Formats: sequence, C-alpha cells, structure tokens
Amino acid sequence: MKLSDLTQHAGEWLRGSGPRSEVVISSRIRLARNVAGFNFLSRCTRHQRQVLEQKVRQTILDASLAPQTLYVDLEQAPEVDRQLLVERHLISKPHAAAEGARGVAIGKDETVSIMVNEEDHLRIQVLRSGLQLQEAWDQINKVDDQLESKLDFSFNPRFGYLTACPTNVGTGIRVSVMLHLPALKLTGEIEKVFRAAKDLKLAVRGLYGEGTEATGDFYQISNQSTLGRSEDEIIEDFGDSIIPKIIDYEHHARKTLISEKGVALDDKVSRALGLLRSARLMATDETLLLLSHLRMGVHMGRVKDVDLGTINELFLLTQPAHLQKIQGKKLEGDVRRAARADYIRARLNGH
Amino acid sequence: MKLSDLTQHAGEWLRGSGPRSEVVISSRIRLARNVAGFNFLSRCTRHQRQVLEQKVRQTILDASLAPQTLYVDLEQAPEVDRQLLVERHLISKPHAAAEGARGVAIGKDETVSIMVNEEDHLRIQVLRSGLQLQEAWDQINKVDDQLESKLDFSFNPRFGYLTACPTNVGTGIRVSVMLHLPALKLTGEIEKVFRAAKDLKLAVRGLYGEGTEATGDFYQISNQSTLGRSEDEIIEDFGDSIIPKIIDYEHHARKTLISEKGVALDDKVSRALGLLRSARLMATDETLLLLSHLRMGVHMGRVKDVDLGTINELFLLTQPAHLQKIQGKKLEGDVRRAARADYIRARLNGH
Repeated sequence: MKLSDLTQHAGEWLRGSGPRSEVVISSRIRLARNVAGFNFLSRCTRHQRQVLEQKVRQTILDASLAPQTLYVDLEQAPEVDRQLLVERHLISKPHAAAEGARGVAIGKDETVSIMVNEEDHLRIQVLRSGLQLQEAWDQINKVDDQLESKLDFSFNPRFGYLTACPTNVGTGIRVSVMLHLPALKLTGEIEKVFRAAKDLKLAVRGLYGEGTEATGDFYQISNQSTLGRSEDEIIEDFGDSIIPKIIDYEHHARKTLISEKGVALDDKVSRALGLLRSARLMATDETLLLLSHLRMGVHMGRVKDVDLGTINELFLLTQPAHLQKIQGKKLEGDVRRAARADYIRARLNGH
Repeated sequence: MKLSDLTQHAGEWLRGSGPRSEVVISSRIRLARNVAGFNFLSRCTRHQRQVLEQKVRQTILDASLAPQTLYVDLEQAPEVDRQLLVERHLISKPHAAAEGARGVAIGKDETVSIMVNEEDHLRIQVLRSGLQLQEAWDQINKVDDQLESKLDFSFNPRFGYLTACPTNVGTGIRVSVMLHLPALKLTGEIEKVFRAAKDLKLAVRGLYGEGTEATGDFYQISNQSTLGRSEDEIIEDFGDSIIPKIIDYEHHARKTLISEKGVALDDKVSRALGLLRSARLMATDETLLLLSHLRMGVHMGRVKDVDLGTINELFLLTQPAHLQKIQGKKLEGDVRRAARADYIRARLNGH
C-alpha cells in the first residue's frame, strides 16, 4: 500500500456508513502505551528516540498486525504527506509538526493506526464510521494484546499503565465520538450540550482535536481522565447513555426546524448547495460549513439530488493536503481556493 | 390606463435600453413651478391646498399633455399604490408620505410625471433610460411650455422662477443621472468619484433619492443649486463632461477587474447568480446587491445565459410594493421574503 492510495476516497472516518451516521461521524478509541526500559520521550536523547522508533516499527511490521500495513516514516515524509495524514485523522497535529524519529503504522482500511513516538511511545488508535464503540473496543483490544506479547509495556500494579501525561495514567484510554450537530447549532441549543458535557467532565473539541475550533458543526466529545474507571465503564457510559442522548437532542432539534422553520431551513440548505455549485473561489472553512448544511439537508430529506457519499468524500478531499495530492502540485492562496471550487463544482454538477 | 398596468414591466427608468446603459440607468430632469396668486404650500390652508390641487389637476387633464394620462389622487390612494409609485420613481418618498390634497399625473410611457402639491405646487419630471439628458430637456421644455400657457407661474424678473426652497430658485431645475458603478465599488475607487463630485458641488445619493443609502451599487448624481446658471449650461456640463468621465472611470475599473482579478470577479458574479437561483428567503437589500453583481457580469460578458431585460425587470418587480401588487395580497416578513425568492427563482430558472 502506498500513501497516495489513500487520497482517492474518504477513508474510514468519513465513510458516513456506520450506525447512527446521520449524526455520528465516527467512533474512536486510542490507548497510550510506553515501552518499559526506555525513558518517556521528553527525557529521551535523540539516539534513544531513534532506537525506540526502530524497535517499535520492527515489532509492528514483524507482527503483521494488520496485513498490508503501511508504515510512514514521519521524519522523512514531506509536509504535504504529514498534513494528509492529519486530515485523515491517522496522526495528530503535534505528531505531524514534531521533530526527530517518529512514524505511523496504518492498517489497510485505515481503521487501525499506531503512532510511534507521539507524546507516548505508542498511541494505538481504532477509528470506525458511525457509532461503533464496542466494535472499536474489541478491535483495539486485540491489537493491544498482540503488541503486548512482543513489547514489555510500562505498567504499575497500583496505577495501571504509565503514561507521559498524568491524565492518561491507568487505562491509557481515550474514547471519543465525532458528532455532526448542525440543527442544535441552528436552534442555539448546542450550548446546553456543552454545559451538560462539562458537568460530565467531558471535553468538546473541533474537527481536528485539541485546540481546534468546531468547524462545520462537527464536535468531538471525549473523556478527559482515565484513572479509577475501567475501560468497559467508560465505553458503556459513552455508547449506551451519553451519545444516544445527544443524538436524540439533535433529532429533536431537526424536527423542530422542520415544523417551525421549514422555509429558513430550506433556505440555508439550498443556498449552501447553490454556492457550492457556483463559487469560483472557496476557502476551507466556508467549504466545511456549506457541506455541513448540505449534509444536514440530505439526511433530513430536504435535498434529493445529491449523493451522500459525494458529500462525505468532499469533506475530506477538499482539505488542503488532499487537494494538493489530487492535483499533484503545490497550491497556495487564491490558486488553491480556485482549485477547490473547481473540484467541488465538478463533483456536485456531475461532470 | 390603470395603475395596475404598471406592475408588469420595468418602466422607463429601468428599461436598461438607452445610450450607455451598461453604466447609466436613467437620466432625469425635473422643474419646480408654483402657481401665481397661491401661497407656497407651507402657508396654504387645507382648503387652499384642495382648490390648488383641483385647479392644477384639471389643467393637466384638459391640456391632454400626454394622451392617456393617468392621474392618481394620492390622498385617496392606498399605501401600497403610493409605495409602488415611489419604487417606479414617479413620485418622491415625501410625496407618498405627506397628507392633504395631492396627486400625480403620469404619461403613458412613464417618461413624464407631474407631482401636484409636493414641496412646490408642481414638480414636472421627465425620466429616460440611459444617458439622454438633451432628449429629456427637449421633452420637459414642451411640457413646461404647454402648462405655462394655461397656468400663471410665479416668476421674478431678477431671480427667475420662485420656489418653496431657495436652492431651487432661478431655473427650478434639477438634473440627475442614476449610475451603476459596481466595479468602482469593488476596486474601492468609488470614494474618488465622491470626492470629485463634492468638489463640483454635486450631490451623490442612493437609489431612492435624498436620504437613502446607495444600495446595489446604484448612485444618483445631481446638481445642488440652480441660481445663476442656465439650464443649457447645467445639462451640457452633466451630459458632455461630468457623466462621460465617470463612465470612463467605471469602464477602466471593469477592465482592471478582468485583467487583475478575473477569478475573484467571476466568483462574485457566479455566487450572485447561484444564490438568486437557489435561495428560499430573500431580503430587498440582498436582492439589489446580488442583481447588481449579476448585471455587471452580464454587461462584462462573464455570464451568458441570463437575459439583461430580466435582470432590469427584477430590480423593480422584487421591490416590496411591486411584489405585493403582483401577488395580489399584503405580504410581510418571512412570507414576503419567501415570495420574493420564489419569484426570482421562477424568473431566473426560466419556469
């Protein structure tokens, strides 16, 4: 598998095909692990970091954890490739921007990725379309077990897995769900969700994780600390209680919009499609917002002639690195915005 | 002729067919006249005002100044009809809003209108599409002569025609030209035109005259005082020197846009058409702005599949009173905005 094979489709996280996908974009679980006998990365020398990366890389590839695993050496990879991996949610922004020996192993269907030398020695991630936390948990458990049979992970009988940041100590788990909540945004009720999430000690973030704004009405909700609770408790809490409640709120808001503000709703959706089909210059943020309104319109049955798969793909393929990969050249400023608008028009006007 | 006959087309002022109509919407001349032996209106009793209105109305209709002249009694006319006449530039906003005996006589093709009991006893107006000041002047001169053969106008050998406001004393003439200057607005050079106009003691106003904002990139330029200059001087100055210079500036700005910002220009024009063809709610101001960009795009050859006549008609027929007349009922708020959007879509999508 080559990196360029990834650019032709939306990947797992925006496939838009899983359960409850009218609201839930994707479910993600990641585990933080460190290899015993090595310092945490902040205390590693350049050389130790290299040795560690070699060791973990070899273990992953030997184990054939996923057949046709692609390993990307991020120290060598050009910026556009690192940006592409961020856009696909396969590595984090800090991992892309860091220096020194580091990499990522990606399973064939992009559900599994393992970041090597991010904040911890290993960050194992499973990402699935729609609401599939239990499936993600079963999958990541197997990967974790396979790796643990080859690597000795830092573990303390009292605290659990040891991690670079204390918030991850214990299970080292972070569970997050990416939600599309355009109706709650339009009715203004999204603030209530934020307050409820805060009371439950959950973090609400934007499309690209920590420190990013909520663009295009996408909200990533995740647990903040892991100490003192079992993985099963966290996952059950999320998948069976918290997320279904938010989904219900969003559905309620959608019904309210239809019954009380049908014309204003259609205006928003129809303007979004009109602009996407006619603009000659299109910035990333405006694209996300318009696609968000369009996605809502299709899911609510207000737009009939646009394919949902196309919309989901456009969310990703219009991102800067994807656009440049598709065009095969560096694009900046208005040239990039023009290329994006041209690409969107071609896809949505069906030629 | 009935008032409702007017609502089906754009009227003279937005016909968009006269000379230099790519920039000049219309040319207008009005003369202020008062009848000797009557006080100025501010000093008339209610009864005197009635007597005056009867006398002038009868004179106009007897003289058959224009065959098939329509006289509208504005004291009796419903608000929507008065608003309709304002939108067609046949009466002024203050004339629509005033109280007491007053009216307007309108010639068949709407080039001539005579307001009775506005600020002066008579305000004679000739309005022509495009840059036609000399033609307007010849036409209004004939109307003025015909009226003066039946009515004794207040005239002072030293000052000329006497008027209610000193700025009109002398010839009583106001010459104004409505310009469409979207490129100068987009390049930011419109401020230079304003400064030059100010130096020349000209007034720059919006679409509906005194006290109105410049909406949709329409600017009305007119002389401010009349004393001490002949009509011919004023008209020559306007038609042969000032206006052609502004037209040249606008053409220059359009060329600059094409050569330096072609994609941004097409983006603006194409988005305007996309929104007009897709919105489900449309406010008056946004309509004017989008139609303005579309009109520019058609005149500059950037849009091929939209008829200029349709655009010119839409400027007028989407105004509040016209819209209500077309629909045959009172429309307010979102219902009116929805009706406007529906009407625009139907016209621009060709069904």
